[in-house]
Amino acid sequence: MTAPWALLAAPASGGPDIPGLLLTLAAVLAATKLVGALARRIGQPAVLGELVAGILLGGSVLGVLDPGEPVLKTLAELGVLILLFEVGLETDLQALRRVGGVALTVGVAGIVLPFAGGYAVATAFGASTITALVIAAAMTATSIGISARVLGDLGRLKTDEGQIVLGAAVFDDVMGLVILAVVGGLAAGTGVTVAGVTTTALIAVGFVVGAVALGAFVARPLMAAVARVPVAGTVGVTAIVFVFVTAAIAAKVGSAMIIGAFAAGLVLHGTPQRHEIEKWVTSLGHVFVPVFFAMVGAEVDLRAMASSQALGLGAALVAVAVAGKVIAGFAPWWFRGHKLLVGVAMVPRGEVGLIFAQMGVTAGVLAGGEFGAVIAMVMVTTFVTPPWLGALTGPPPDGRGDGDSDSGLNELVSEGAPQVPPRRATQARPRLS
Amino acid sequence: MTAPWALLAAPASGGPDIPGLLLTLAAVLAATKLVGALARRIGQPAVLGELVAGILLGGSVLGVLDPGEPVLKTLAELGVLILLFEVGLETDLQALRRVGGVALTVGVAGIVLPFAGGYAVATAFGASTITALVIAAAMTATSIGISARVLGDLGRLKTDEGQIVLGAAVFDDVMGLVILAVVGGLAAGTGVTVAGVTTTALIAVGFVVGAVALGAFVARPLMAAVARVPVAGTVGVTAIVFVFVTAAIAAKVGSAMIIGAFAAGLVLHGTPQRHEIEKWVTSLGHVFVPVFFAMVGAEVDLRAMASSQALGLGAALVAVAVAGKVIAGFAPWWFRGHKLLVGVAMVPRGEVGLIFAQMGVTAGVLAGGEFGAVIAMVMVTTFVTPPWLGALTGPPPDGRGDGDSDSGLNELVSEGAPQVPPRRATQARPRLS
Repeated sequence: MTAPWALLAAPASGGPDIPGLLLTLAAVLAATKLVGALARRIGQPAVLGELVAGILLGGSVLGVLDPGEPVLKTLAELGVLILLFEVGLETDLQALRRVGGVALTVGVAGIVLPFAGGYAVATAFGASTITALVIAAAMTATSIGISARVLGDLGRLKTDEGQIVLGAAVFDDVMGLVILAVVGGLAAGTGVTVAGVTTTALIAVGFVVGAVALGAFVARPLMAAVARVPVAGTVGVTAIVFVFVTAAIAAKVGSAMIIGAFAAGLVLHGTPQRHEIEKWVTSLGHVFVPVFFAMVGAEVDLRAMASSQALGLGAALVAVAVAGKVIAGFAPWWFRGHKLLVGVAMVPRGEVGLIFAQMGVTAGVLAGGEFGAVIAMVMVTTFVTPPWLGALTGPPPDGRGDGDSDSGLNELVSEGAPQVPPRRATQARPRLS
Repeated sequence: MTAPWALLAAPASGGPDIPGLLLTLAAVLAATKLVGALARRIGQPAVLGELVAGILLGGSVLGVLDPGEPVLKTLAELGVLILLFEVGLETDLQALRRVGGVALTVGVAGIVLPFAGGYAVATAFGASTITALVIAAAMTATSIGISARVLGDLGRLKTDEGQIVLGAAVFDDVMGLVILAVVGGLAAGTGVTVAGVTTTALIAVGFVVGAVALGAFVARPLMAAVARVPVAGTVGVTAIVFVFVTAAIAAKVGSAMIIGAFAAGLVLHGTPQRHEIEKWVTSLGHVFVPVFFAMVGAEVDLRAMASSQALGLGAALVAVAVAGKVIAGFAPWWFRGHKLLVGVAMVPRGEVGLIFAQMGVTAGVLAGGEFGAVIAMVMVTTFVTPPWLGALTGPPPDGRGDGDSDSGLNELVSEGAPQVPPRRATQARPRLS
């Protein structure tokens, strides 16, 4: 670090440089919160702002944030685990069953089309098989938080279309994580064999299914027992211990840690302590999750991204990413609702795409330009959705959104996702402070 | 690590071993919560149990927790900062003024007597000047959280005696931190000169006074501005950024980071957002603070502690620590209340004593036996107080304690401090889950 910053951050005697770390953490939290709030002002999700804050703090611009710093890397890893735990905690597997075949069809088509398209585009731009697979995988998963929030703001969350999008996004999340485990295994060097891919996929699916099945027997009695302990924070601490252990086990059995964290969330979703846990984990998320997004942003090399090759790849990926999800909305041909609305609502990739990209860099299969192109794809798909959905629908039926009446998704959604600008002035803004 | 544990914690490819760290963190959180809850069952403060959990996990027994591990060390450092921030946030400087001269007299005597006695004892046991100073300093500060909670459980918090103890403990806290900064400077090798001691003390006092004075102008408008930002967690994140920056500045101007964190708490105590911040920071405290106590416990070398020399030193320190505070209760000769009650309530040393001990080890001036003796002093003084106070007073006047009606101290106190056993069965247990 040669930034002026460094003058304020001389190493303490012995051990890690805590004052320097505190200043970097303070800069990361302040910048992500500030740019995140600015993003919200223009009707965009906070995650976009946090990513931009990371790009600004990173080596391309200010050079304050070193994405290789081991302690911050660890905090960022904890951040992804907490994020995926929160997503799992909010995910109602029953919702998939309720909206049934339509959602499943949209979900499958919305994974297959962008994956195939992304693979083809990346190969056409000269990427190796494994690089193309990572890029393709990053195209698959819709950001459930962003979709849900925008639909809620438009008052469409309770409609058939809204429920289909939620169901398909949940399916997306689960499948996206399975793909992550498979591609992660490949990127780590297992080689692309049918047997290898099948094994990794089975482990990932088996882990989620097993965790949820077993969890019903383990989690309820466990949480019921600790809920009786008269010491503050016992339920929350038990939940986070559960997350850490499940994530470590997932890594041990050859799957991804975030699969474990997500599964832990799915399991605890079914306990009566769910809302207490959600509330308790919120401030941990506020501190750790932005560190992850900022570290991803800091990894972006604007020079590498500005090459014509990277710009071309980025533009092609954006086209395929948008087209794949929009067409997927039309896949359930028998459905008589607003198919374009469904497709557009599935477009934002958000945090899951970023996790893929980060994994690709860590595994060494995404170079600067390819990484930049994937980040651009995530940012553009997330950016275009709120105004596009706003243009497709009229104002909310009752004059305000219903997003905040859907209690289950509130916390996650109010943090991660945008409000739609055209209707801002006339809308109530509940529970955002 | 050669524990069976290690089998589960093989390094991930590249970067820190996250799964292993997750398992260690999970073990620390589970063990501190479990033994902490057991401590509470027998009417003792949770902090005692967390310390015991650390001793069990450390090298002396299970060998699971390595007190030198850099990431855990960093998390523990964040834990102390969050703890001192919470203490500052709960501290009402006005209280000192209200109970006036009596509290000040108790506070001064309660610092001078144990400091002088501790220094004499340590020197008699052959300690060097700097080691004796660190040991003496660790004897000074009463644990405000533990005292307040026990008095509350006995229904004596609102009495003259209760208010005097709180006022004296607040004074203790501030002075203890000043002593920490001075002794910390000495331990880091500045040498014991009158000029050096005076400078460091002036910096520490100046920092607290300056921060509180400036803070009134800066913190209120800042918090008022961010409170208007409609993004979840803005107030909490701003508060923690404020803590980190203040702590880093304190370190930069030659004081201790925890002085900065404490000063940040004092400043934010005066803002209308205080309760929101308290609530927000609670779960961060639940995760980070036990890591600190566990790391201190893990540092304890039971073999070194079991030497006759260390046991003799420990016993002598306990005697001086108890006698010093009890006698201090009688220092305001003109006060006509229950002087013994005041003195006994000042006995528990709790977390501040641990911070001194930890600092002594880090600076290399406390050897295993001396460190163990200080830890024993902290544990015994904390352990004897609840039953002793219970024996001195009758049952609470109205049949239950008033601890929980004193809203300001609740969160901290309900976490850090014990209930008094003799009256457990007949007492309501509000707000502990």
